[in-house]
Amino acid sequence: MSGLTFDVLATDGAARRGRLHTAHGTVETPAFMPVGTAATVKAMRPESVAETGAEIILGNTYHLMLRPGAERVAELGGLHRFMNWPGPILTDSGGFQVMSLSGLRKMTERGVTFQSHIDGSKHELTPERSMDIQRLLDADVTMAFDECTPWPVSEADAATSMRLSMRWAERSRAAFVERPGYGLFGINQGSVYGDLRAESAERLAAIGFDGYAVGGLAVGEGQEAMFQALDGVVPRLPADRPRYLMGVGKPADIVGAVARGIDMFDCVLPTRSGRTGQAFTRRAVVNVKNARHAADPRPLEEGCRCPACCSYSRAYLHHLIRAGEILGAMLLTWHNLVHYQDLMAGLRSAIAEGRLPDFVAGFQAEQARGDIELP
Amino acid sequence: MSGLTFDVLATDGAARRGRLHTAHGTVETPAFMPVGTAATVKAMRPESVAETGAEIILGNTYHLMLRPGAERVAELGGLHRFMNWPGPILTDSGGFQVMSLSGLRKMTERGVTFQSHIDGSKHELTPERSMDIQRLLDADVTMAFDECTPWPVSEADAATSMRLSMRWAERSRAAFVERPGYGLFGINQGSVYGDLRAESAERLAAIGFDGYAVGGLAVGEGQEAMFQALDGVVPRLPADRPRYLMGVGKPADIVGAVARGIDMFDCVLPTRSGRTGQAFTRRAVVNVKNARHAADPRPLEEGCRCPACCSYSRAYLHHLIRAGEILGAMLLTWHNLVHYQDLMAGLRSAIAEGRLPDFVAGFQAEQARGDIELP
Repeated sequence: MSGLTFDVLATDGAARRGRLHTAHGTVETPAFMPVGTAATVKAMRPESVAETGAEIILGNTYHLMLRPGAERVAELGGLHRFMNWPGPILTDSGGFQVMSLSGLRKMTERGVTFQSHIDGSKHELTPERSMDIQRLLDADVTMAFDECTPWPVSEADAATSMRLSMRWAERSRAAFVERPGYGLFGINQGSVYGDLRAESAERLAAIGFDGYAVGGLAVGEGQEAMFQALDGVVPRLPADRPRYLMGVGKPADIVGAVARGIDMFDCVLPTRSGRTGQAFTRRAVVNVKNARHAADPRPLEEGCRCPACCSYSRAYLHHLIRAGEILGAMLLTWHNLVHYQDLMAGLRSAIAEGRLPDFVAGFQAEQARGDIELP
Repeated sequence: MSGLTFDVLATDGAARRGRLHTAHGTVETPAFMPVGTAATVKAMRPESVAETGAEIILGNTYHLMLRPGAERVAELGGLHRFMNWPGPILTDSGGFQVMSLSGLRKMTERGVTFQSHIDGSKHELTPERSMDIQRLLDADVTMAFDECTPWPVSEADAATSMRLSMRWAERSRAAFVERPGYGLFGINQGSVYGDLRAESAERLAAIGFDGYAVGGLAVGEGQEAMFQALDGVVPRLPADRPRYLMGVGKPADIVGAVARGIDMFDCVLPTRSGRTGQAFTRRAVVNVKNARHAADPRPLEEGCRCPACCSYSRAYLHHLIRAGEILGAMLLTWHNLVHYQDLMAGLRSAIAEGRLPDFVAGFQAEQARGDIELP
């Protein structure tokens, strides 16, 4: 059945060092996928995204169906060609953004009707239409259409929501057109309720997917509750298939989730933070806008390979962000993506070499140090 | 006296093919200088600016004195190091932006006091302070402090303004600290009044500068009046020194001014237009936002060497600009700067080979064709 090949190359505890083969190339896992919402990883040329070490990016079905439209992207040769990213692409199903971004919505068993946040036009998303759109976009990894359960939520409401998502998962599987190198991921739901997560995992495995995502986390429940949910659900996901924790997260979230057996991640944090002057370093999240950087001749992070650190002072980056200059967004986004990709590379090596606990301890010790002192 | 060496390598009619030697490198002329207002050519990495073919960029004294401050830039190693542009830099004197951007102003014989447009703080610019700031910035080419005569203006007011600028030019010359590879340009004023321009040229030549700029044009008087002013004044500028037409302009303005003996240009047009979706092509100025590009799979300009044209469709660029994506500003700015630099390279070759009239005729014929038809 599988259109995607996944090899587990090594394990260290629950953590896995893997390799995902897709129609547009190979992805070394654990992998972080930069978010390219509207057919662009914001403020980055795709060549630069690749230089950071990213091998797969994420596109958003909701945004792309509204603008420029899935049929338009298909006419122009698919999303890879349209946005000049020749590597693997995963698209989400649109379900999450419909709930968080669109106007007037109506959800039924059939799907969701909603108004575009761009021009108010009316649209419908169903499992079948979501599969159709993701095929038109030419996504290597298609996500099943689901409802992202909100937070906080009662167990009864979480159950109702999860079971709807499971029925939609079946319809997604039926509507998905199989092609070599292309695959469909199911999405586990159930909020923080272990029994519901277990029920969801069982139903997804029975349907059978190329990979299994954990959805509905990192929505406000906190890291501890998230890790607890992962501890319960990850062992119930088929071990021979990739596992994807959606929308996560901070570096510490990723490290903890990798240790719990997650293989894939996506998050807007490195790109969005870059545009607002927040920089991830090994020691701290640095607010570049802060006045204490105004005269600092040192790089953001000593030894970092990104252009922001190799060629500029903190003082210059501070100046750019204060002045609202596009180059500030460009350089800090680049830095943050390098930070995330280098973290993933470190995790992959540590797992392959059986020293993940040491790596995690070193990571935590660095993070506890805080930003460098004033010169 | 001269800290800058300038060689006229060839002439074709009034046009000159030259070479300017500065402390930070050589500039082939006629040259177009991209504007790097706040220590960044907006939406471009400096490496990319250099790739377009630009050899010298412009920095704005007014912006840099307010943020991050000239003393701050000096502490951080000067503007070249601060912004990672190792090549030549020309800074304007601050006079033009004080009049166009700042709040409450008061002009006296001594100089101008004004309020920052950023935070309302009070500042003073005089010829002496402008020289001091430009030295702190480490500009290869310093501009004399002048008043940019507004338009429209009576001959009497233009005369008063020009004569003040000439007294300030003398004070600028006296305050400028000579160093090998660094130079000071005087600025010709007098609006559209030939006698005033002639008087200004004579006074500047008597003071003696490393180069001579023509200021106060392209302020609304129209191309015909601008060319007429150049016809009158350029022959009165010392032939062995570079001539710089400030703030100009559209490609057709540049072509006409080169034919009249101008060697250097600067303008925000290619960068500012890029950010708003206006692209310069050989045949037309293309509004990328226009709906007719929405499904067009062709590049912006066939044969263009820039990344926007090599890797993307008009449909994609249209999508980026419509979606307000930073990558749209990045790609169109890059394209426009390549367009300007390739135009300058074409002009330089044509002058060197004695075929400028043919080049100008070809340029005008291309421009008359208009944008490519719908596919």
